[in-house]
Amino acid sequence: MPTKKTITTFLDELASPSPAPGGGSVAALAGALGTALTAMVCHLTIGKKKYAVVEEEMKKILGQAESLRSQFTALIDTDTAAFQKVMEAFGLPKETEPQKALRAAAIREATKEATLVPLEVMKHCIDALALAQQVASSGNTNAISDAGVSALMLHVACSAAGLNVRVNLKSLDDPEFVGWKKEELESLLSTSSMMLDEIQSIVDVKLGDG
Amino acid sequence: MPTKKTITTFLDELASPSPAPGGGSVAALAGALGTALTAMVCHLTIGKKKYAVVEEEMKKILGQAESLRSQFTALIDTDTAAFQKVMEAFGLPKETEPQKALRAAAIREATKEATLVPLEVMKHCIDALALAQQVASSGNTNAISDAGVSALMLHVACSAAGLNVRVNLKSLDDPEFVGWKKEELESLLSTSSMMLDEIQSIVDVKLGDG
Repeated sequence: MPTKKTITTFLDELASPSPAPGGGSVAALAGALGTALTAMVCHLTIGKKKYAVVEEEMKKILGQAESLRSQFTALIDTDTAAFQKVMEAFGLPKETEPQKALRAAAIREATKEATLVPLEVMKHCIDALALAQQVASSGNTNAISDAGVSALMLHVACSAAGLNVRVNLKSLDDPEFVGWKKEELESLLSTSSMMLDEIQSIVDVKLGDG
Repeated sequence: MPTKKTITTFLDELASPSPAPGGGSVAALAGALGTALTAMVCHLTIGKKKYAVVEEEMKKILGQAESLRSQFTALIDTDTAAFQKVMEAFGLPKETEPQKALRAAAIREATKEATLVPLEVMKHCIDALALAQQVASSGNTNAISDAGVSALMLHVACSAAGLNVRVNLKSLDDPEFVGWKKEELESLLSTSSMMLDEIQSIVDVKLGDG
């Protein structure tokens, strides 16, 4: 379980010759980092007289951000496990024709599974960006750079997960599944970009450069 | 030392009401994650017959990526420490005029220090993006999405560190220092964007969408 390791150990394993954990786990981790920062901005807003009017809103966002953070954190490990399943399928025997057919089917199924994990990361990013936008708009202005970093991390999580979806789709010989997932991918990526732009405008105004 | 904590504990501390670690540490961590992925792509290229011609180049990049990774990892802790110094300065007594003057000077110095840390992160990102570009061009094509995620993380590290530079400069009353650092900031941000665009074109071609 990568998430039970220290930051330094996780980085060492990431840098190692083993392909897992890799970019997919990093995407999920970026999502967890983004939601953690949204939660921090909520905490730095709740209980402050100046922000009493948004107190209830911030408490609600905090709960939602923490729930998304748990999901992103679980997906760090899920992505590593899904990748290992693909590797296991590649390791199946391929000496006879029936073995080859079984192996090909196992690789296809494992690759589809491995595609769904980063797609789930992408969907969570959109939900999490909506929360980041609310804390950037209404949260403690002293933490505006943290709200901005939160949004940056969530958008990069979505983009990085998108690369993992693309690389998996590339190897799949199932035009219907591939076509459907590519459409979903494009729509999620463009929504994420749009949301980041909106949040950056809010951050720019609050940093006095807007 | 945040880097000696597990991923889950680090995320918990990030999400907590304490403002440190915050966005600055996340920026440095994103840099470390990006260089770790560059190192992984080097490892997945070195020793492969198909890539024998770039073996020496990959070994050199690996050494440079690992050295940058150490620097990014150290900066995760440095950023948290620099932020705590600013907080300490704010906590100094401010009852008499001399105390007020001392406190203002301490805040100014600590804020300048806290500005230099993310600026260092940004400079390292440019060096690291040059390595990511090389592994995207010449590294193992099977790991192209990891090279792409590496570049995404390094660019977001630069952007996130940039927000931390801006928020610190905003509170500084030293036009010369602010003007000089703003110029540096703008130049680093535009270089990083340009480099990411170039790497993304390479990745798009290798993923068959270029």
